[in-house]
Amino acid sequence: MKSGSPIADLCSIERTLQIVGERWSLLVLREVLLYGHSKFGDIERSLTIAPNVLSERLATMVDAGVLEKHEYREAGSRARFSYHPTDAGRDLIIVLAALQQWGDDHNAPEGGVTVTRSLGDSPARVAIVDSSRRAHDLDDLRFSPTAAYVRAR
Amino acid sequence: MKSGSPIADLCSIERTLQIVGERWSLLVLREVLLYGHSKFGDIERSLTIAPNVLSERLATMVDAGVLEKHEYREAGSRARFSYHPTDAGRDLIIVLAALQQWGDDHNAPEGGVTVTRSLGDSPARVAIVDSSRRAHDLDDLRFSPTAAYVRAR
Repeated sequence: MKSGSPIADLCSIERTLQIVGERWSLLVLREVLLYGHSKFGDIERSLTIAPNVLSERLATMVDAGVLEKHEYREAGSRARFSYHPTDAGRDLIIVLAALQQWGDDHNAPEGGVTVTRSLGDSPARVAIVDSSRRAHDLDDLRFSPTAAYVRAR
Repeated sequence: MKSGSPIADLCSIERTLQIVGERWSLLVLREVLLYGHSKFGDIERSLTIAPNVLSERLATMVDAGVLEKHEYREAGSRARFSYHPTDAGRDLIIVLAALQQWGDDHNAPEGGVTVTRSLGDSPARVAIVDSSRRAHDLDDLRFSPTAAYVRAR
């Protein structure tokens, strides 16, 4: 998103959406993070995305430190580029998993869920956990503005 | 997003983005789910969003069963509308929390985090949990295509 609400620069939700909230960006990340695609051409073919749009989305995510751009060259071809998640980029898997889980739970395709998430032998869910890493119900979660929020308004 | 990749209808990530992936939609949900705004006018003012865009985003989310539209009338005024999360809509809090956490962790505003997440006295994090509700490292998470995916391709 190129612009947002009046608190765009303060809100971490909006700051994240400024990096990954444009159309296609999260699907590009799906290709890289879930399917392991890294070459520009592979992502382009898999998504059937216009190359100029793909270039723009990748550039935003490289600039933001989510992806790293590497040059590679195959025999007899010109130099091409591939894209690899940084450690920060890898952490966006949890955003993709949260979107996927909601779709699985509330809007699954007719033929059933197409991709499962697992931890060893156990199915995996995205959840809210406390400092001892135990999951809680979503109803128990509270959001509270900090002094930084109050100062900045 | 009005269209997506060739597997748009299969992938739960894309199916979710078809409902909440348009520009502004997740910010509208932030207003409703995190800040407790429900009246059209309150959301409009808080976001400084064009009313026609807000109407369109709300209509998509009402149609998808994420929000419910209620009519209300204040003394001496015409009927107005307010928007309230369904149970399915409330589950999208985890998507907002995941976006927020990533922003807090990797792209926090200079003055510090502006909204905290808590569970009672404990800070709350979004994490991947197993069937006994214990959090695991993100590196342990595996995504696997199902038979439904293979059939449908």
